[in-house]
Amino acid sequence: MGERLLYELATADGASISPYVWRSKFALGRKRLPYRSCPIGFTDIAAVGPGSFRSVPILRDGDEWIGDSWDIADHLDRTYPDVPPIFRSRGERGNARFFEKWMSVEVISRLTRVCVLDIHDRLKAEDRAYFRESREARLGQSLESLHEDRLTQVPLLCAVLQPLRSSLEQQPFIGGECPTYSDYIGASSFIWAGSVATLQILKPDDPILLWLNRCLSLHGNIAAGLELPGLPPFRT
Amino acid sequence: MGERLLYELATADGASISPYVWRSKFALGRKRLPYRSCPIGFTDIAAVGPGSFRSVPILRDGDEWIGDSWDIADHLDRTYPDVPPIFRSRGERGNARFFEKWMSVEVISRLTRVCVLDIHDRLKAEDRAYFRESREARLGQSLESLHEDRLTQVPLLCAVLQPLRSSLEQQPFIGGECPTYSDYIGASSFIWAGSVATLQILKPDDPILLWLNRCLSLHGNIAAGLELPGLPPFRT
Repeated sequence: MGERLLYELATADGASISPYVWRSKFALGRKRLPYRSCPIGFTDIAAVGPGSFRSVPILRDGDEWIGDSWDIADHLDRTYPDVPPIFRSRGERGNARFFEKWMSVEVISRLTRVCVLDIHDRLKAEDRAYFRESREARLGQSLESLHEDRLTQVPLLCAVLQPLRSSLEQQPFIGGECPTYSDYIGASSFIWAGSVATLQILKPDDPILLWLNRCLSLHGNIAAGLELPGLPPFRT
Repeated sequence: MGERLLYELATADGASISPYVWRSKFALGRKRLPYRSCPIGFTDIAAVGPGSFRSVPILRDGDEWIGDSWDIADHLDRTYPDVPPIFRSRGERGNARFFEKWMSVEVISRLTRVCVLDIHDRLKAEDRAYFRESREARLGQSLESLHEDRLTQVPLLCAVLQPLRSSLEQQPFIGGECPTYSDYIGASSFIWAGSVATLQILKPDDPILLWLNRCLSLHGNIAAGLELPGLPPFRT
Protein backbone atom coordinates (compact mmCIF):
# COMPACT_ATOMS: atom_id res chain seq x y z
CA MET A 1 0.00 0.00 0.00
CA GLY A 2 1.36 3.40 -1.01
CA GLU A 3 0.88 6.60 0.87
CA ARG A 4 -2.42 8.55 0.73
CA LEU A 5 -1.84 11.62 -1.45
CA LEU A 6 -4.22 14.48 -2.29
CA TYR A 7 -3.29 16.61 -5.29
CA GLU A 8 -4.43 20.16 -4.61
CA LEU A 9 -4.57 23.14 -6.93
CA ALA A 10 -2.25 25.74 -5.40
CA THR A 11 -1.41 29.39 -5.98
CA ALA A 12 2.18 30.59 -6.39
CA ASP A 13 2.35 31.08 -2.61
CA GLY A 14 0.89 27.65 -1.84
CA ALA A 15 -2.75 28.43 -0.97
CA SER A 16 -5.15 25.56 -1.81
CA ILE A 17 -7.82 27.27 -3.86
CA SER A 18 -9.97 24.72 -5.69
CA PRO A 19 -13.49 24.50 -4.20
CA TYR A 20 -13.63 20.89 -5.40
CA VAL A 21 -10.41 19.98 -3.59
CA TRP A 22 -11.78 21.52 -0.40
CA ARG A 23 -14.77 19.17 -0.59
CA SER A 24 -12.37 16.23 -0.51
CA LYS A 25 -10.37 17.78 2.33
CA PHE A 26 -13.59 17.97 4.35
CA ALA A 27 -14.49 14.39 3.35
CA LEU A 28 -11.07 13.06 4.42
CA GLY A 29 -11.28 15.08 7.63
CA ARG A 30 -14.72 13.69 8.47
CA LYS A 31 -13.40 10.16 8.08
CA ARG A 32 -10.26 11.05 10.07
CA LEU A 33 -8.01 9.79 7.26
CA PRO A 34 -4.57 11.39 7.19
CA TYR A 35 -3.04 12.30 3.84
CA ARG A 36 -0.08 14.11 2.34
CA SER A 37 -0.93 17.20 0.35
CA CYS A 38 0.67 17.58 -3.12
CA PRO A 39 0.30 21.16 -4.37
CA ILE A 40 0.17 21.40 -8.17
CA GLY A 41 -0.76 23.97 -10.80
CA PHE A 42 -3.31 23.76 -13.64
CA THR A 43 -0.56 22.86 -16.09
CA ASP A 44 0.64 19.95 -13.94
CA ILE A 45 -2.69 18.07 -13.81
CA ALA A 46 -2.26 16.02 -17.01
CA ALA A 47 1.02 14.55 -15.73
CA VAL A 48 -0.36 13.26 -12.41
CA GLY A 49 -0.66 9.51 -11.90
CA PRO A 50 -1.94 7.60 -14.94
CA GLY A 51 -2.12 10.85 -16.92
CA SER A 52 -5.88 10.62 -17.52
CA PHE A 53 -7.03 13.35 -15.14
CA ARG A 54 -8.15 16.76 -16.39
CA SER A 55 -9.18 18.37 -13.11
CA VAL A 56 -8.54 18.31 -9.37
CA PRO A 57 -8.99 16.84 -6.80
CA ILE A 58 -7.00 13.69 -7.48
CA LEU A 59 -6.58 11.18 -4.67
CA ARG A 60 -4.05 8.42 -4.59
CA ASP A 61 -5.20 5.95 -1.98
CA GLY A 62 -2.83 3.03 -1.72
CA ASP A 63 -2.71 1.63 -5.23
CA GLU A 64 -5.87 3.37 -6.42
CA TRP A 65 -6.14 6.69 -8.26
CA ILE A 66 -9.48 8.51 -7.97
CA GLY A 67 -10.51 11.84 -9.52
CA ASP A 68 -13.72 13.91 -9.10
CA SER A 69 -14.89 14.96 -5.65
CA TRP A 70 -18.07 12.83 -5.76
CA ASP A 71 -16.13 9.72 -6.78
CA ILE A 72 -13.65 10.39 -3.99
CA ALA A 73 -16.43 10.71 -1.41
CA ASP A 74 -18.04 7.46 -2.62
CA HIS A 75 -14.64 5.72 -2.64
CA LEU A 76 -13.96 6.80 0.95
CA ASP A 77 -17.37 5.63 2.21
CA ARG A 78 -16.99 2.30 0.39
CA THR A 79 -13.38 1.68 1.44
CA TYR A 80 -13.61 2.89 5.04
CA PRO A 81 -17.03 1.81 6.33
CA ASP A 82 -15.84 1.77 9.96
CA VAL A 83 -15.30 5.52 10.24
CA PRO A 84 -18.16 8.09 10.14
CA PRO A 85 -19.96 8.03 6.77
CA ILE A 86 -19.82 11.08 4.52
CA PHE A 87 -23.37 10.27 3.39
CA ARG A 88 -25.55 8.97 6.23
CA SER A 89 -28.27 8.10 3.71
CA ARG A 90 -28.61 7.96 -0.08
CA GLY A 91 -31.12 10.77 0.24
CA GLU A 92 -28.45 13.01 1.78
CA ARG A 93 -26.27 12.38 -1.26
CA GLY A 94 -29.14 13.16 -3.64
CA ASN A 95 -30.01 16.37 -1.82
CA ALA A 96 -26.34 17.41 -1.89
CA ARG A 97 -26.49 17.11 -5.71
CA PHE A 98 -29.32 19.63 -5.75
CA PHE A 99 -27.37 21.88 -3.39
CA GLU A 100 -24.34 21.64 -5.69
CA LYS A 101 -26.43 22.69 -8.70
CA TRP A 102 -27.83 25.64 -6.77
CA MET A 103 -24.33 26.69 -5.66
CA SER A 104 -23.05 26.35 -9.20
CA VAL A 105 -25.85 28.21 -11.00
CA GLU A 106 -26.52 30.95 -8.47
CA VAL A 107 -23.44 31.40 -6.28
CA ILE A 108 -20.19 30.12 -7.83
CA SER A 109 -21.00 31.89 -11.11
CA ARG A 110 -21.18 35.21 -9.25
CA LEU A 111 -18.20 34.52 -6.98
CA THR A 112 -16.18 33.80 -10.12
CA ARG A 113 -17.09 37.18 -11.59
CA VAL A 114 -16.02 38.86 -8.34
CA CYS A 115 -12.59 37.28 -8.01
CA VAL A 116 -11.45 35.84 -11.34
CA LEU A 117 -8.66 38.40 -11.85
CA ASP A 118 -7.62 37.99 -8.20
CA ILE A 119 -7.22 34.24 -8.83
CA HIS A 120 -5.22 34.88 -11.99
CA ASP A 121 -2.83 37.21 -10.17
CA ARG A 122 -2.16 34.61 -7.46
CA LEU A 123 -1.41 31.75 -9.86
CA LYS A 124 2.06 30.48 -10.75
CA ALA A 125 3.40 32.20 -13.88
CA GLU A 126 3.07 29.04 -15.99
CA ASP A 127 -0.65 28.64 -15.13
CA ARG A 128 -1.73 32.16 -16.06
CA ALA A 129 -2.07 31.88 -19.86
CA TYR A 130 -4.25 28.75 -19.63
CA PHE A 131 -6.39 30.28 -16.90
CA ARG A 132 -6.90 33.58 -18.74
CA GLU A 133 -7.76 31.92 -22.03
CA SER A 134 -10.19 29.33 -20.62
CA ARG A 135 -11.99 31.78 -18.26
CA GLU A 136 -12.28 34.59 -20.80
CA ALA A 137 -13.74 32.12 -23.32
CA ARG A 138 -16.21 30.77 -20.74
CA LEU A 139 -17.28 34.16 -19.38
CA GLY A 140 -17.18 36.10 -22.65
CA GLN A 141 -15.27 39.04 -21.14
CA SER A 142 -11.68 39.94 -20.36
CA LEU A 143 -10.55 39.31 -16.79
CA GLU A 144 -9.93 43.03 -16.44
CA SER A 145 -13.45 44.04 -17.49
CA LEU A 146 -14.94 41.42 -15.12
CA HIS A 147 -12.79 42.91 -12.36
CA GLU A 148 -14.08 46.40 -13.11
CA ASP A 149 -17.69 45.16 -12.85
CA ARG A 150 -17.16 43.18 -9.69
CA LEU A 151 -18.83 45.66 -7.33
CA THR A 152 -22.10 45.17 -9.22
CA GLN A 153 -21.96 41.42 -8.43
CA VAL A 154 -21.76 41.78 -4.64
CA PRO A 155 -25.39 42.89 -4.03
CA LEU A 156 -26.62 40.25 -6.52
CA LEU A 157 -24.64 37.64 -4.61
CA CYS A 158 -26.06 38.87 -1.30
CA ALA A 159 -29.61 38.53 -2.71
CA VAL A 160 -29.26 35.05 -4.22
CA LEU A 161 -27.84 33.75 -0.92
CA GLN A 162 -31.19 34.35 0.83
CA PRO A 163 -32.34 30.68 0.84
CA LEU A 164 -29.05 29.63 2.46
CA ARG A 165 -29.25 32.51 4.93
CA SER A 166 -32.85 31.66 5.89
CA SER A 167 -32.09 28.00 6.46
CA LEU A 168 -29.05 28.87 8.62
CA GLU A 169 -31.18 31.19 10.72
CA GLN A 170 -33.16 28.09 11.70
CA GLN A 171 -30.40 25.53 12.14
CA PRO A 172 -26.59 25.59 12.63
CA PHE A 173 -25.75 23.57 9.50
CA ILE A 174 -27.40 22.95 6.13
CA GLY A 175 -27.65 19.39 7.43
CA GLY A 176 -29.46 20.52 10.59
CA GLU A 177 -27.59 19.96 13.88
CA CYS A 178 -24.62 18.33 12.13
CA PRO A 179 -22.81 19.03 8.84
CA THR A 180 -23.60 17.09 5.68
CA TYR A 181 -21.85 17.02 2.32
CA SER A 182 -23.94 20.06 1.31
CA ASP A 183 -22.19 22.00 4.08
CA TYR A 184 -18.82 20.93 2.65
CA ILE A 185 -19.86 21.99 -0.86
CA GLY A 186 -21.00 25.38 0.40
CA ALA A 187 -18.09 26.08 2.73
CA SER A 188 -15.56 24.99 0.09
CA SER A 189 -16.79 27.65 -2.31
CA PHE A 190 -16.54 30.41 0.27
CA ILE A 191 -13.05 29.22 1.26
CA TRP A 192 -12.03 29.28 -2.41
CA ALA A 193 -13.34 32.79 -3.05
CA GLY A 194 -12.40 34.06 0.41
CA SER A 195 -8.80 32.93 -0.07
CA VAL A 196 -8.26 35.12 -3.12
CA ALA A 197 -10.84 37.93 -3.24
CA THR A 198 -9.49 41.43 -2.72
CA LEU A 199 -12.87 42.76 -1.59
CA GLN A 200 -15.23 41.35 1.02
CA ILE A 201 -17.74 38.92 -0.46
CA LEU A 202 -19.98 38.77 2.67
CA LYS A 203 -21.10 41.46 5.08
CA PRO A 204 -19.80 41.20 8.67
CA ASP A 205 -23.31 40.61 10.08
CA ASP A 206 -24.34 37.92 7.58
CA PRO A 207 -25.53 34.73 9.36
CA ILE A 208 -23.76 32.80 6.59
CA LEU A 209 -20.48 33.96 8.12
CA LEU A 210 -21.31 32.30 11.47
CA TRP A 211 -22.07 29.02 9.69
CA LEU A 212 -18.85 29.28 7.71
CA ASN A 213 -16.95 29.79 10.95
CA ARG A 214 -18.54 26.61 12.32
CA CYS A 215 -17.51 24.72 9.17
CA LEU A 216 -13.91 25.95 9.37
CA SER A 217 -13.66 24.55 12.88
CA LEU A 218 -14.83 21.05 11.92
CA HIS A 219 -12.73 17.89 11.85
CA GLY A 220 -9.83 19.01 14.00
CA ASN A 221 -10.05 22.67 13.00
CA ILE A 222 -9.71 21.85 9.32
CA ALA A 223 -9.04 25.39 8.15
CA ALA A 224 -6.72 26.50 10.95
CA GLY A 225 -4.23 29.09 9.80
CA LEU A 226 -6.05 29.76 6.54
CA GLU A 227 -5.89 33.36 5.35
CA LEU A 228 -9.24 34.61 4.03
CA PRO A 229 -8.82 38.23 2.92
CA GLY A 230 -12.16 38.11 1.07
CA LEU A 231 -14.15 37.50 4.27
CA PRO A 232 -14.72 39.85 7.20
CA PRO A 233 -12.63 38.87 10.24
CA PHE A 234 -14.75 36.60 12.41
CA ARG A 235 -12.57 34.11 14.18
CA THR A 236 -11.96 34.84 17.84
CA MET B 1 -58.29 6.10 19.78
CA GLY B 2 -60.22 8.34 17.41
CA GLU B 3 -60.06 8.24 13.67
CA ARG B 4 -57.10 9.73 11.75
CA LEU B 5 -58.28 12.98 10.12
CA LEU B 6 -56.42 15.36 7.81
CA TYR B 7 -57.92 18.83 7.44
CA GLU B 8 -57.24 20.04 3.92
CA LEU B 9 -57.74 23.45 2.38
CA ALA B 10 -60.25 22.99 -0.43
CA THR B 11 -61.68 25.05 -3.25
CA ALA B 12 -65.41 25.42 -3.80
CA ASP B 13 -65.32 22.32 -6.02
CA GLY B 14 -63.32 20.27 -3.50
CA ALA B 15 -59.76 20.40 -4.90
CA SER B 16 -57.06 20.17 -2.20
CA ILE B 17 -54.84 23.15 -2.97
CA SER B 18 -52.51 23.88 -0.05
CA PRO B 19 -48.89 22.96 -0.86
CA TYR B 20 -48.33 22.39 2.85
CA VAL B 21 -51.24 19.93 3.05
CA TRP B 22 -49.82 18.02 0.09
CA ARG B 23 -46.54 17.55 1.97
CA SER B 24 -48.49 15.80 4.73
CA LYS B 25 -50.44 13.73 2.20
CA PHE B 26 -47.10 12.50 0.79
CA ALA B 27 -45.80 11.86 4.32
CA LEU B 28 -48.88 9.84 5.27
CA GLY B 29 -48.67 7.97 1.95
CA ARG B 30 -45.02 7.09 2.50
CA LYS B 31 -45.85 5.62 5.88
CA ARG B 32 -48.89 3.85 4.45
CA LEU B 33 -51.16 5.40 7.07
CA PRO B 34 -54.81 5.70 5.99
CA TYR B 35 -56.72 8.83 6.93
CA ARG B 36 -60.03 10.53 6.30
CA SER B 37 -59.83 13.81 4.47
CA CYS B 38 -61.75 16.79 5.89
CA PRO B 39 -62.02 19.60 3.35
CA ILE B 40 -62.26 23.06 4.92
CA GLY B 41 -61.93 26.68 3.82
CA PHE B 42 -59.64 29.43 5.14
CA THR B 43 -62.44 30.77 7.32
CA ASP B 44 -63.01 27.37 8.97
CA ILE B 45 -59.45 26.87 10.25
CA ALA B 46 -59.86 28.68 13.58
CA ALA B 47 -62.76 26.41 14.56
CA VAL B 48 -60.92 23.11 14.01
CA GLY B 49 -60.03 20.98 17.05
CA PRO B 50 -58.77 22.96 20.04
CA GLY B 51 -59.23 26.23 18.09
CA SER B 52 -55.54 27.17 18.27
CA PHE B 53 -54.60 26.51 14.63
CA ARG B 54 -54.10 29.33 12.15
CA SER B 55 -53.02 27.34 9.07
CA VAL B 56 -53.33 23.93 7.43
CA PRO B 57 -52.45 21.07 7.46
CA ILE B 58 -54.00 19.95 10.71
CA LEU B 59 -53.83 16.27 11.62
CA ARG B 60 -55.93 14.58 14.23
CA ASP B 61 -54.19 11.32 15.05
CA GLY B 62 -56.08 9.40 17.71
CA ASP B 63 -56.30 11.83 20.60
CA GLU B 64 -53.55 14.14 19.37
CA TRP B 65 -53.93 17.30 17.29
CA ILE B 66 -50.86 18.38 15.28
CA GLY B 67 -50.47 21.39 13.00
CA ASP B 68 -47.55 22.43 10.71
CA SER B 69 -46.26 20.07 8.04
CA TRP B 70 -42.82 19.65 9.70
CA ASP B 71 -44.38 18.83 13.07
CA ILE B 72 -46.69 16.33 11.37
CA ALA B 73 -43.74 14.62 9.64
CA ASP B 74 -41.82 14.42 12.92
CA HIS B 75 -44.91 13.16 14.74
CA LEU B 76 -45.42 10.40 12.17
CA ASP B 77 -41.78 9.24 12.30
CA ARG B 78 -41.84 9.27 16.11
CA THR B 79 -45.23 7.56 16.47
CA TYR B 80 -44.84 4.96 13.69
CA PRO B 81 -41.20 3.84 13.70
CA ASP B 82 -42.07 0.47 12.13
CA VAL B 83 -43.11 1.87 8.75
CA PRO B 84 -40.67 3.55 6.31
CA PRO B 85 -39.19 6.73 7.81
CA ILE B 86 -39.96 10.08 6.21
CA PHE B 87 -36.45 11.21 7.15
CA ARG B 88 -33.85 8.46 6.76
CA SER B 89 -31.25 10.67 8.47
CA ARG B 90 -31.23 13.94 10.36
CA GLY B 91 -29.14 15.34 7.52
CA GLU B 92 -31.96 14.64 5.05
CA ARG B 93 -34.28 16.69 7.24
CA GLY B 94 -31.76 19.54 7.43
CA ASN B 95 -31.22 19.55 3.67
CA ALA B 96 -35.00 19.56 3.12
CA ARG B 97 -35.13 22.79 5.18
CA PHE B 98 -32.71 24.39 2.75
CA PHE B 99 -34.76 23.08 -0.18
CA GLU B 100 -37.91 24.54 1.39
CA LYS B 101 -36.27 27.96 1.72
CA TRP B 102 -35.15 27.83 -1.90
CA MET B 103 -38.65 26.85 -3.04
CA SER B 104 -40.19 29.60 -0.95
CA VAL B 105 -37.83 32.43 -1.97
CA GLU B 106 -37.35 31.57 -5.63
CA VAL B 107 -40.26 29.42 -6.79
CA ILE B 108 -43.42 29.72 -4.64
CA SER B 109 -43.15 33.52 -4.72
CA ARG B 110 -43.30 33.45 -8.54
CA LEU B 111 -45.94 30.71 -8.74
CA THR B 112 -48.11 32.84 -6.44
CA ARG B 113 -47.82 35.80 -8.79
CA VAL B 114 -48.83 33.58 -11.69
CA CYS B 115 -51.97 32.06 -10.18
CA VAL B 116 -53.17 34.14 -7.24
CA LEU B 117 -56.32 35.35 -9.01
CA ASP B 118 -56.97 31.82 -10.29
CA ILE B 119 -56.88 30.60 -6.67
CA HIS B 120 -59.22 33.38 -5.56
CA ASP B 121 -61.74 32.49 -8.25
CA ARG B 122 -61.80 28.84 -7.18
CA LEU B 123 -62.35 29.52 -3.47
CA LYS B 124 -65.66 29.21 -1.66
CA ALA B 125 -67.49 32.54 -1.56
CA GLU B 126 -66.90 32.98 2.18
CA ASP B 127 -63.10 32.61 1.80
CA ARG B 128 -62.63 35.19 -0.93
CA ALA B 129 -62.61 38.42 1.08
CA TYR B 130 -59.97 37.12 3.53
CA PHE B 131 -57.85 35.74 0.70
CA ARG B 132 -57.98 38.96 -1.35
CA GLU B 133 -57.18 41.19 1.59
CA SER B 134 -54.28 39.11 2.97
CA ARG B 135 -52.66 38.44 -0.44
CA GLU B 136 -52.99 41.99 -1.73
CA ALA B 137 -51.42 43.28 1.50
CA ARG B 138 -48.57 40.76 1.26
CA LEU B 139 -47.87 41.29 -2.45
CA GLY B 140 -48.53 45.02 -2.60
CA GLN B 141 -50.72 44.78 -5.72
CA SER B 142 -54.32 44.00 -6.58
CA LEU B 143 -55.04 40.40 -7.61
CA GLU B 144 -56.16 41.71 -10.99
CA SER B 145 -52.91 43.61 -11.68
CA LEU B 146 -50.87 40.55 -10.63
CA HIS B 147 -52.97 38.51 -13.06
CA GLU B 148 -52.26 40.96 -15.86
CA ASP B 149 -48.50 40.68 -15.22
CA ARG B 150 -48.47 36.91 -14.93
CA LEU B 151 -46.96 36.25 -18.36
CA THR B 152 -43.83 38.14 -17.32
CA GLN B 153 -43.36 35.72 -14.41
CA VAL B 154 -43.28 32.53 -16.52
CA PRO B 155 -39.80 33.03 -18.09
CA LEU B 156 -38.43 34.17 -14.70
CA LEU B 157 -39.84 31.01 -13.15
CA CYS B 158 -38.33 28.88 -15.92
CA ALA B 159 -34.90 30.46 -15.27
CA VAL B 160 -34.87 30.13 -11.47
CA LEU B 161 -35.82 26.45 -11.77
CA GLN B 162 -32.45 25.66 -13.42
CA PRO B 163 -30.77 24.14 -10.32
CA LEU B 164 -33.72 21.75 -9.88
CA ARG B 165 -33.74 20.94 -13.61
CA SER B 166 -29.97 20.24 -13.61
CA SER B 167 -30.13 17.94 -10.61
CA LEU B 168 -33.07 16.02 -12.13
CA GLU B 169 -31.11 15.56 -15.36
CA GLN B 170 -28.63 13.56 -13.26
CA GLN B 171 -30.96 11.60 -10.99
CA PRO B 172 -34.65 10.64 -10.95
CA PHE B 173 -35.49 12.33 -7.62
CA ILE B 174 -34.06 15.22 -5.62
CA GLY B 175 -33.16 12.50 -3.13
CA GLY B 176 -31.28 10.51 -5.80
CA GLU B 177 -32.76 7.11 -6.69
CA CYS B 178 -35.61 7.47 -4.19
CA PRO B 179 -37.76 10.40 -3.07
CA THR B 180 -37.00 12.39 0.07
CA TYR B 181 -39.00 15.05 1.86
CA SER B 182 -37.45 17.62 -0.51
CA ASP B 183 -39.23 15.85 -3.36
CA TYR B 184 -42.52 16.10 -1.47
CA ILE B 185 -41.96 19.82 -0.82
CA GLY B 186 -41.20 20.45 -4.48
CA ALA B 187 -43.97 18.30 -5.96
CA SER B 188 -46.54 19.74 -3.52
CA SER B 189 -45.92 23.25 -4.81
CA PHE B 190 -46.34 22.22 -8.44
CA ILE B 191 -49.51 20.31 -7.55
CA TRP B 192 -50.86 23.40 -5.78
CA ALA B 193 -50.12 25.76 -8.67
CA GLY B 194 -50.92 23.18 -11.35
CA SER B 195 -54.36 22.56 -9.81
CA VAL B 196 -55.48 26.15 -10.22
CA ALA B 197 -53.36 27.94 -12.85
CA THR B 198 -55.14 28.89 -16.06
CA LEU B 199 -51.91 29.00 -18.05
CA GLN B 200 -49.17 26.40 -18.25
CA ILE B 201 -46.47 26.94 -15.66
CA LEU B 202 -43.96 24.46 -17.19
CA LYS B 203 -43.04 23.75 -20.79
CA PRO B 204 -43.95 20.29 -22.17
CA ASP B 205 -40.26 19.32 -22.61
CA ASP B 206 -39.09 20.41 -19.16
CA PRO B 207 -37.32 17.54 -17.30
CA ILE B 208 -39.02 18.84 -14.17
CA LEU B 209 -42.28 17.55 -15.61
CA LEU B 210 -40.93 13.98 -15.81
CA TRP B 211 -39.86 14.16 -12.18
CA LEU B 212 -43.26 15.52 -11.18
CA ASN B 213 -44.92 12.65 -12.98
CA ARG B 214 -42.77 10.20 -10.98
CA CYS B 215 -43.80 11.95 -7.75
CA LEU B 216 -47.51 11.82 -8.61
CA SER B 217 -47.23 8.06 -9.03
CA LEU B 218 -45.67 7.47 -5.61
CA HIS B 219 -47.27 5.78 -2.61
CA GLY B 220 -50.08 3.99 -4.39
CA ASN B 221 -50.52 6.59 -7.13
CA ILE B 222 -51.05 9.37 -4.62
CA ALA B 223 -52.32 11.92 -7.13
CA ALA B 224 -54.54 9.65 -9.22
CA GLY B 225 -57.45 11.49 -10.72
CA LEU B 226 -56.04 14.92 -9.91
CA GLU B 227 -56.83 17.59 -12.48
CA LEU B 228 -53.84 19.80 -13.27
CA PRO B 229 -54.87 22.37 -15.87
CA GLY B 230 -51.70 24.43 -15.19
CA LEU B 231 -49.38 21.63 -16.35
CA PRO B 232 -48.90 20.23 -19.83
CA PRO B 233 -50.56 16.80 -20.22
CA PHE B 234 -47.95 14.16 -19.44
CA ARG B 235 -49.59 11.16 -17.87
CA THR B 236 -49.95 8.15 -20.12
